[in-house]
Amino acid sequence: MATEIERKFLVKDDTWRGLGEGGHYRQGYLSTEPDRTVRVRVVAGKGYLTIKGRTVDATRAEYEYVIPLADANAMLDELCERPLIEKTRYRIDCQGLLWEVDEFEGENAGLVIAEVELASADQVVALPDWVGEEVTTDPRYYNANLIANPFSRWAG
Amino acid sequence: MATEIERKFLVKDDTWRGLGEGGHYRQGYLSTEPDRTVRVRVVAGKGYLTIKGRTVDATRAEYEYVIPLADANAMLDELCERPLIEKTRYRIDCQGLLWEVDEFEGENAGLVIAEVELASADQVVALPDWVGEEVTTDPRYYNANLIANPFSRWAG
Repeated sequence: MATEIERKFLVKDDTWRGLGEGGHYRQGYLSTEPDRTVRVRVVAGKGYLTIKGRTVDATRAEYEYVIPLADANAMLDELCERPLIEKTRYRIDCQGLLWEVDEFEGENAGLVIAEVELASADQVVALPDWVGEEVTTDPRYYNANLIANPFSRWAG
Repeated sequence: MATEIERKFLVKDDTWRGLGEGGHYRQGYLSTEPDRTVRVRVVAGKGYLTIKGRTVDATRAEYEYVIPLADANAMLDELCERPLIEKTRYRIDCQGLLWEVDEFEGENAGLVIAEVELASADQVVALPDWVGEEVTTDPRYYNANLIANPFSRWAG
């Protein structure tokens, strides 16, 4: 078991573009219950199964296993809740921290979220200029919730 | 991905006892949705994560992975739906088929189910004398449903 400590922000503008390499993520959920999400993900030709507990103080339990790519694709195609989440994740180093900027596609197109993983919940974070409002505790931005209520359906 | 073809029966009496060895199973669910159940199981000191699709014609897709025992126990203790399922499974060879007799404990005490795994859905099965009514298609007997509605709460 690992513990994930993560803060999540909106981005202000496009100045982050070009700062890091992007990789395509295709993922879906076998459970979107906040107490026990179960995610299937395919990235860079590998399959992963990830179980996460409820987020408390930006922290949650996380269990991740590599699974056969064929299994992951079959579960995404046949078992996972609809819609799937597709996004490109850009990895950007900034002042010693690794930022991950997720640009969503499909029913969540238009949504861009910046995440930073921390060593402790109270770690001081120097925010890059392109980082805007924090949304760590806003459940609308949980990937699991972007299925039931995708960004394209949010009221302006 | 494997395909599981299974028929499930009640037992008539106790004459199956002594015909096979028993092993203790402790298991819980991260999802009990019929389209995508996710089970955590500990048996014989090993942890397993198992994903199953919906049952159609006694057949369902199944993906099973061995996971660290400590992860499985932590997920059972902290993440899985309540109550957990505890049972002793007896493995009994009978006329070339392997029968698994599950004797449930806790909130499902009193329930005994015999299962047989088949090579095809139309395989002819010679039923042992102690095998009673078939309940393959009765959702009350799905392990996942024995959590929300345990046997001890069924009306007589």
